[in-house]
Parts: sequence; structure tokens; C-alpha cells
Amino acid sequence: MSAHSVGYFVGSLSRQSINRKLASALTRLAPSELSFSEITYSDLPPYNHDCDGICPQIARDFHASTAAVRAVLFITPDYNRSLPGALKNAIDWASRPYGANAFSQKPSAVIGASIGAIGTA
Amino acid sequence: MSAHSVGYFVGSLSRQSINRKLASALTRLAPSELSFSEITYSDLPPYNHDCDGICPQIARDFHASTAAVRAVLFITPDYNRSLPGALKNAIDWASRPYGANAFSQKPSAVIGASIGAIGTA
Repeated sequence: MSAHSVGYFVGSLSRQSINRKLASALTRLAPSELSFSEITYSDLPPYNHDCDGICPQIARDFHASTAAVRAVLFITPDYNRSLPGALKNAIDWASRPYGANAFSQKPSAVIGASIGAIGTA
Repeated sequence: MSAHSVGYFVGSLSRQSINRKLASALTRLAPSELSFSEITYSDLPPYNHDCDGICPQIARDFHASTAAVRAVLFITPDYNRSLPGALKNAIDWASRPYGANAFSQKPSAVIGASIGAIGTA
């Protein structure tokens, strides 16, 4: 994994997602010393505290993918003035169990595209 | 459905959820003119804009359950300083498609129990 690996999450699961198009443009235009990889999460089950430490394999793989990158980027619309629930669910999985937050010490940023006047508030 | 029907959402899916215990105590202690029913959401798929209007049956049933009550109550912990992702995903489903927000005109409240010092911030 390169020293400048960036994992990105696309917040919309729509086939026509403009945030996915933004991700595509961004990764194409980015400086070559950054290596982007998408971290997918749509198959994760709802986070359940009971699974801490004995997560389903898909959640462990997801956690490992998030932990493996040097920085994370969220490319997302807002739904009801907040993160899409499915993306928030992914964040909940990545942040647990207590003491093993995959985002710990990682630079992160949030960007987004929207067709609405409020943008991605 | 009674004039004072309240649908409640329990934010934690844990078997030992203290928020579920709070829900249980609350519905037991509530005045008899309120009729409580739990609205479950843990089997909902991740919300996807592409499904607006042609949702899977489970999402339509969930939307109808939410629309049918007079008020809603969220009984939830906070995860990472916000709603649990799975609960937020349920809210996203209930609020769509555009123009058919199941929460529209409904009184709502949020309460929660937590073992942490910040409570359910």
C-alpha cells in the first residue's frame, strides 16, 4: 500500500450517482503520488454492538480495508441534512470495537455534489 | 389506529440494549390514552434513490407503518455523536420518495439511555 493511499467512500448507491461521477473525475485528476481505492460498504449488515470482536467476515474485511489506507475521503450527498444512513452505518462498523477505530489518526475529508440549492449541507 | 398512536424506533439492535429496556419501561408507564407500537427497521436494505417509487416490499411496508402512526419517538443511543447508521437509514427510507415523507406533520421526540458520561449527545 503506497504511502499516500486514500480510501474513498461514495455516499450514494444510485446507479446515476453524481457523487460517483465526482469520485471518478477526482481520482482521474489527482496527482500521481496519491493512489485512490474505493471502499465499498453497501453489503454490510446494520451495525450491532453484540458483534464487537466477533463480527461477520464482511464487516471484518471492511474494517481491514479502512484500516489499511492512509487517509479517507467521503464523497457524499446529504440525506435529511446528514450523512446517508448506509454510509453512517459503515462508519459505525469501522469505528468499532472500542480501541480499534479504523479511522484513528487518519486524515479525512468530506466533499459532495448535489442538484439542490443547499448543496451537500 | 387510535388517535394517540405512537410509533417508536429503538436505535440499538443489541440483545442487551438499555434503550430497549427504556422503551419497555416507557410503554408500561405511559398514560393509557397513548398506544405504543414498535416500528422495526433492521431488515431494510441500504436506501437507494433508484428505488424511489419502486421500493422493495419491505421498504413499502416500513413506510406504511411509519405513515400510519400519529407521532414518532426515537429511543436511541448515539454512535459517533450521531444517530446509529441503521436508524438513519430507516429515516431516509421513511422520508422518501420526495413529497411522501412519512414523518410529515408528525410530532416527534428523541430520548436515549447511555452508559457513557456524554449520555446520548
